Amino acid sequence: MKKVPVLEIFGPTIQGEGMVIGRKTMFLRTGGCDYRCSWCDSAFTWDGSQKPDLLEASDIVERLEMEGGSFFNHVTISGGNPALHEGLGEVNRLLQEKGIQTAVETQGSFWQEWMTEIDDVTISPKPPSSGMKTNWEQLDAYIRRLKDRDTKKVSLKVVIFDDTDLSYAADVHERYPEVEMFLQTGNDELSTADDQWLLSHLLTRYEWLVEQVLHANRLNDVKVLPQLHTLLWGNKQGV
Amino acid sequence: MKKVPVLEIFGPTIQGEGMVIGRKTMFLRTGGCDYRCSWCDSAFTWDGSQKPDLLEASDIVERLEMEGGSFFNHVTISGGNPALHEGLGEVNRLLQEKGIQTAVETQGSFWQEWMTEIDDVTISPKPPSSGMKTNWEQLDAYIRRLKDRDTKKVSLKVVIFDDTDLSYAADVHERYPEVEMFLQTGNDELSTADDQWLLSHLLTRYEWLVEQVLHANRLNDVKVLPQLHTLLWGNKQGV
Repeated sequence: MKKVPVLEIFGPTIQGEGMVIGRKTMFLRTGGCDYRCSWCDSAFTWDGSQKPDLLEASDIVERLEMEGGSFFNHVTISGGNPALHEGLGEVNRLLQEKGIQTAVETQGSFWQEWMTEIDDVTISPKPPSSGMKTNWEQLDAYIRRLKDRDTKKVSLKVVIFDDTDLSYAADVHERYPEVEMFLQTGNDELSTADDQWLLSHLLTRYEWLVEQVLHANRLNDVKVLPQLHTLLWGNKQGV
Repeated sequence: MKKVPVLEIFGPTIQGEGMVIGRKTMFLRTGGCDYRCSWCDSAFTWDGSQKPDLLEASDIVERLEMEGGSFFNHVTISGGNPALHEGLGEVNRLLQEKGIQTAVETQGSFWQEWMTEIDDVTISPKPPSSGMKTNWEQLDAYIRRLKDRDTKKVSLKVVIFDDTDLSYAADVHERYPEVEMFLQTGNDELSTADDQWLLSHLLTRYEWLVEQVLHANRLNDVKVLPQLHTLLWGNKQGV
């Protein structure tokens, strides 16, 4: 059994973004990432500042149940890039056997067979402002394997910081028009503890993104969302 | 051809709430309602303060296209209670013929055959704080007719002001467990023009609602959302 490096288990809370926005969920955050996005809001998963626990699948499920009690039936697996970890397949199987639904978010740079079993897959290719390069053939294969699953869903999510990112997002949307697409404002103020100021700053950025999308007919189909948890709780970790 | 009383046509903007939250859409708001909710945020649709234009379906579609140009492919029909108006069937048909998707929101107190043709139906039964009474048999029939449509979707949305509303919402959710359910904070400050104060007030209410749901295992499945347009634009009409 492959162990999984776990950095955080917390909840229940609400999913603040993307395809299941507002959904009551537990979070399981894994350590390690193959990317180094310039604006990563979870850099502690890969910059060495926090050490993960190496856990067996059954221990992970036990900790989720200890934290969440009877108050959840949905678990979001996030990172870092959770797709680095083969052992999450067993975690997913154990959760679904208990009637718990699962979601995962990944940039789509690594494939795991367990990915096809996840209920809600968010693929979040990284725009130019991240400093990362998209491997389009890899992304094509990812989407192809996930989009025609029966009751399970896949979506794309692109975080937007500037006009160049927006044009990248339009390219992604045109390449995969059949996949539900979310645009999200990026948080460029990751270290401030002034929640009131951050709230106003993030809403101004969200309004800017809404305006851009409203005036772009390449983006008629997309959904534009803020990060609800950041509006509520600022930059606090573990909520 | 039955004419439709129209109070507002505006957009494109984003849908600020519910099942298609964040989606770029045009709004068509009809006049008239069979309800008188104490906290209605669109009372101008029924209190006589604003006069609707009686329009043919083709004129409505023309005005939507004039306002929205090539910058939309989704129209949200709201009210008042749009289900009072037979003529919306023709509006819906004309829009869908052009490849435009449609959404409607209604409390589920009146039935129209065109309801089955709408892509995204939000049924929003009104909780006790509204002062209205739910006719459960009517609601059962509504859900029954809408829930098994092939590619079209239905959801429930309940606006929450207090604990009694929350318990009502849990009853609704248990009666229709198979229907996706959204809880939404109500805006109890409809007349303030102080957007900054309203924002902080509404986020406090949203956080309260999130906390209640997190601690209620009858509500594990629901999604809890704010009204994004109110966070962005306060009480302004027509955005």
